[in-house]
Amino acid sequence: MAQRYVRVKNYQGQTYYGLLQLNRTVVVLDAPPWLGGKPTDIILTADSYQLLFPSNPSKIIAVGKNYSDHAAEMGTPVPDEPLLFLKPPTTLIAEHQPIYYPYQSERVDYEGELALIIGQETKNCSINQARQKIWGYTIANDVTARDLQKKDGQWTRGKGFDSFCPLGPWIVREINADAKITTFINQETQPRQSALLSDMVFSPEEIVSYISQIMTLLPGDIILTGTPEGVGPMEIGDRVRVEIEGIGILENHVVAYAQTPSINQENPTLPK
Amino acid sequence: MAQRYVRVKNYQGQTYYGLLQLNRTVVVLDAPPWLGGKPTDIILTADSYQLLFPSNPSKIIAVGKNYSDHAAEMGTPVPDEPLLFLKPPTTLIAEHQPIYYPYQSERVDYEGELALIIGQETKNCSINQARQKIWGYTIANDVTARDLQKKDGQWTRGKGFDSFCPLGPWIVREINADAKITTFINQETQPRQSALLSDMVFSPEEIVSYISQIMTLLPGDIILTGTPEGVGPMEIGDRVRVEIEGIGILENHVVAYAQTPSINQENPTLPK
Repeated sequence: MAQRYVRVKNYQGQTYYGLLQLNRTVVVLDAPPWLGGKPTDIILTADSYQLLFPSNPSKIIAVGKNYSDHAAEMGTPVPDEPLLFLKPPTTLIAEHQPIYYPYQSERVDYEGELALIIGQETKNCSINQARQKIWGYTIANDVTARDLQKKDGQWTRGKGFDSFCPLGPWIVREINADAKITTFINQETQPRQSALLSDMVFSPEEIVSYISQIMTLLPGDIILTGTPEGVGPMEIGDRVRVEIEGIGILENHVVAYAQTPSINQENPTLPK
Repeated sequence: MAQRYVRVKNYQGQTYYGLLQLNRTVVVLDAPPWLGGKPTDIILTADSYQLLFPSNPSKIIAVGKNYSDHAAEMGTPVPDEPLLFLKPPTTLIAEHQPIYYPYQSERVDYEGELALIIGQETKNCSINQARQKIWGYTIANDVTARDLQKKDGQWTRGKGFDSFCPLGPWIVREINADAKITTFINQETQPRQSALLSDMVFSPEEIVSYISQIMTLLPGDIILTGTPEGVGPMEIGDRVRVEIEGIGILENHVVAYAQTPSINQENPTLPK
């Protein structure tokens, strides 16, 4: 099995990057792995930590309409260039943390996606250079208040609520270009979304190169590569599960909140 | 004169928050002032540092069409709620640093704006509570590639290029609600933009309250409050100057770059 890179918090509130072992212990690294972090002698037992989202980035860049079937279901053509938007870092949550249904929306959708983790400062890189800038891969859910996205025109509010970017559970270094991505709701056996990563209009390398012509990418930055056909609503109480072959399963649940609580990234105050 | 809060880098590359004195020396603070930073015994002489943009935020949130005359000149109605968008932190530059004209655009506009600096973690605050969450005020230029903004629909690329958010030169704690904001190009004596901050559709307190219903604001976060009527293009070689009464002058110049260089926020590699 591929090495799994995690970020964890112990019960004293200290955060670490680490290597997740098969017995669920974590070997602590002395720095983020993309900055050269090396294993230490510190081992966290399986019951002594909580998984966090696996990178704490300076920014999250996302690509819209990057699967042709999804562009069609939204009634729009595939763009001739990647269509970019940003999610604030305060959207990030880890696996099993709750997605808060905002009081402002009546339609909150899942969007299962492959996420890229940038490993080094990157500007103006070519498509050929881009592969080596991608340090690893994880799973994301680009949660979207569809009604607010449409009302505003700009997608910032609809995609920007606290808890609207589940990410994880861990990072792997390699992935098959034609790995399958699927999204499931509750106990359903038929996926709501099912596609191959090779169905993307713009490949991860094309996306990284394109973004790097605009803005400097920094180590740990996260890029969401777009969602396939089959987006749809989640209801309060639902469990949503995004799976990518070769990575794993990212599961979260949806809870009601009249006023969503504050997210502090390094010291989450979210109720479990 | 009001106390002026700055962020500086010395020639060893160390960054500090500080208090700018009238003789241009800087009294170093032991932490960001909004986190309770206190003056130290370290004084930087006027020739020993470079001004940086005055806050290094986790995110920059901006409001579109927040002056009715500007909404009209863009041919759009004033929104019934603040229209939000994000700029990546890599857009930030300090006074006198160059704005790079991207090769992808043929129309790059200035947009003079009041910027708010958030002082404490803020979620779900009321309009009445919002004033105490705003730690201070500075000047911003929300530089925009107008052609790409229109082409993409989403504003992320058009407003997201490296160097597209000049900010500073310093932060002040208080500002008059009816202070004048003006934007000048080169030696022109007639401002291209001229308005009162009281002309805003949504006040700073209304904006902070609104955003805080969506996402957690963190100390140091920056909010751009929108630009008045009179936006227009800058050409390579132009100097652009945004002035706000009670704060000062933010001046930058526009340079050509076939490929814009990398911005690393704490160690800018931008050529002077």
